[in-house]
Amino acid sequence: MIDVSLVREAVRQRKARSENFLGFEYLRFSDDYKDIPRGTAIFQDTVIWGYPHIGRIFMLGKGIREQFEKPFWVEEKVDGYNVRIFRVGDRVIALSRGGYLCPFTTDRLPDFINRDFFEENPDLVLCTEVAGPENPYIDESPPFVKEDVKFFVFDIMRKNEQGFLSQDEKLRLIEKYSLPSVEVFGRFSHEDVDKLKDLLIKLNEEGREGVVLKEDSEENRRAKYITSYANLSDIKVTAKNMLQLPPEYYTNRILRLVLFMEEEGIERTEHLYEELGRAFIDGLFDAIEQFKREHKVYRTFRCRFNRRENALALVELLQRTSRHIQVVQKDLKEEDSYWVLTFDKVFLNMTGLLGHLLSGGLVFD
Amino acid sequence: MIDVSLVREAVRQRKARSENFLGFEYLRFSDDYKDIPRGTAIFQDTVIWGYPHIGRIFMLGKGIREQFEKPFWVEEKVDGYNVRIFRVGDRVIALSRGGYLCPFTTDRLPDFINRDFFEENPDLVLCTEVAGPENPYIDESPPFVKEDVKFFVFDIMRKNEQGFLSQDEKLRLIEKYSLPSVEVFGRFSHEDVDKLKDLLIKLNEEGREGVVLKEDSEENRRAKYITSYANLSDIKVTAKNMLQLPPEYYTNRILRLVLFMEEEGIERTEHLYEELGRAFIDGLFDAIEQFKREHKVYRTFRCRFNRRENALALVELLQRTSRHIQVVQKDLKEEDSYWVLTFDKVFLNMTGLLGHLLSGGLVFD
Repeated sequence: MIDVSLVREAVRQRKARSENFLGFEYLRFSDDYKDIPRGTAIFQDTVIWGYPHIGRIFMLGKGIREQFEKPFWVEEKVDGYNVRIFRVGDRVIALSRGGYLCPFTTDRLPDFINRDFFEENPDLVLCTEVAGPENPYIDESPPFVKEDVKFFVFDIMRKNEQGFLSQDEKLRLIEKYSLPSVEVFGRFSHEDVDKLKDLLIKLNEEGREGVVLKEDSEENRRAKYITSYANLSDIKVTAKNMLQLPPEYYTNRILRLVLFMEEEGIERTEHLYEELGRAFIDGLFDAIEQFKREHKVYRTFRCRFNRRENALALVELLQRTSRHIQVVQKDLKEEDSYWVLTFDKVFLNMTGLLGHLLSGGLVFD
Repeated sequence: MIDVSLVREAVRQRKARSENFLGFEYLRFSDDYKDIPRGTAIFQDTVIWGYPHIGRIFMLGKGIREQFEKPFWVEEKVDGYNVRIFRVGDRVIALSRGGYLCPFTTDRLPDFINRDFFEENPDLVLCTEVAGPENPYIDESPPFVKEDVKFFVFDIMRKNEQGFLSQDEKLRLIEKYSLPSVEVFGRFSHEDVDKLKDLLIKLNEEGREGVVLKEDSEENRRAKYITSYANLSDIKVTAKNMLQLPPEYYTNRILRLVLFMEEEGIERTEHLYEELGRAFIDGLFDAIEQFKREHKVYRTFRCRFNRRENALALVELLQRTSRHIQVVQKDLKEEDSYWVLTFDKVFLNMTGLLGHLLSGGLVFD
């Protein structure tokens, strides 16, 4: 458990705040505070620890030798959003990375996760990536999810405990309950650098995000490694809303892209230069053209719900928590046994800047 | 004059500080303070006002209609560094934009500026761009300076006064003293948008930076407009030292590039995509390859002096004022009646990051 005086101090410093949503009242850590990661949530006496930060390596060969002493599992890093799913009372709910109760994920989880798991393991927490073209949070989706969303379990935690179940135990539970999970590429060691590089080249060609490496040991050291495809894709997808993200978002990705090429021995071709340029330029042109047509820059999201009230709750949550983004509900109608919600995220910074610049405004920079 | 109590307050707030260099003692405004721009300098009773900020327009047609009421002069914006040159006692010196006394510019100005100008106009200040491949500050240089540096007068101020001499008076003095100056493309009005766009297309094709527009009126409103070439070139030249600049440096330039294309009706071609990608990727590859070879990322500068002690003073100034850059003198020798200084700027941030990443280090971002 977390010491009560520590929690009080976190609340006083506004690093933790109470949330009341969908009938649940809990305390949410909105920032890292001492050893407590952002997204940690306390429901009465139960602590759901935030999902820890995983460091990134830029060089595969040197990275694994530097970071790991023992062999390690290699699993796919799926390009979606991270939730923790667990039982509270007689309900099963999903918390976002930041610790918000997500009405969309909570609504849809019975479609993907066998409820027996929580009946028989009420003390466990499924760390899961949700990905697909119809998710309410992120613009990207992996090539192997063609519609709607899918769930991918990648870790299992125990309530009130930091750290994860062992790989064996996790795989046993995934099999027993037929849980959807990320692909496990196997157990690798320092000698397998070439095999690992080949795997990454393949993932890159298939448009997949990368891998998470998890040491097969008590220490369970971890690191992630991302393909150049994913870096390009991040730039392409977000360029339309370039002002929303910290500019390091872009410079970091360009640096990672170049280091991936260097590590994997990928030649600098005109095609690759072109792809990077295109990623920036096309996104910004989209924004300009959309602004000229509709006087705002936005992106439309669509997602499916089992229950209408969860769709409304999602809109409310997004409106309450989005900064510099206006969330506008467009449509909510029944379709093939789902409630289909359509909404726009209007990028206010980009809309404002283009309005100023395109009308001949002056900028001091 | 600036009120004494205002100066005292600026000093107290560390916005102004006293400098003692090359036998001159003066007060330098290191930041904007109230209406006093950064770079303003006070020599005993004489104020040399800082060169004011000029706003940038992103759209030529709408921009001139929005910013100017009357016709305006169009002058070349030369890609160099900005100095103010004036007489103090019996010496003529040059201050950088930030208000530092520049030993290089001061050393070289007799080679380019007719000294009679200052004999006969001791109260005037020449606002001048210094540009060329052998300058100690910036990595870029305009296509029309093939070696060494050249001086380009673009404004004339009066000591103790803000604002500039009129265009007529400036041109008269430039002619009278045969001062080297920026190219004046003429006097344009709102109706001349197409002519102006043609000019910018031409400058862009010639690899020139852009234009400064100066309203021909009492108000003397101003704006600048930059070619897409210059934005690409900025990215290409600085990518090697990407961590040194604020990341907005890059996102701003990408946005400007796209708006220039939009305004000028430049098609998105594969070539252009490729150029933007290449600008980032090649610079970073250079950095990586240099690091692998020499364990540091640096750029070598070379410049010519009339007097040896000015070269040493420049190295001292750079060492004292550079942040995150180590300045290492390599060579100083006589060559064809000049003292030729060679020095390296070692980019400590990039060197440190690559050292960490290439050895397999972990990054949390």
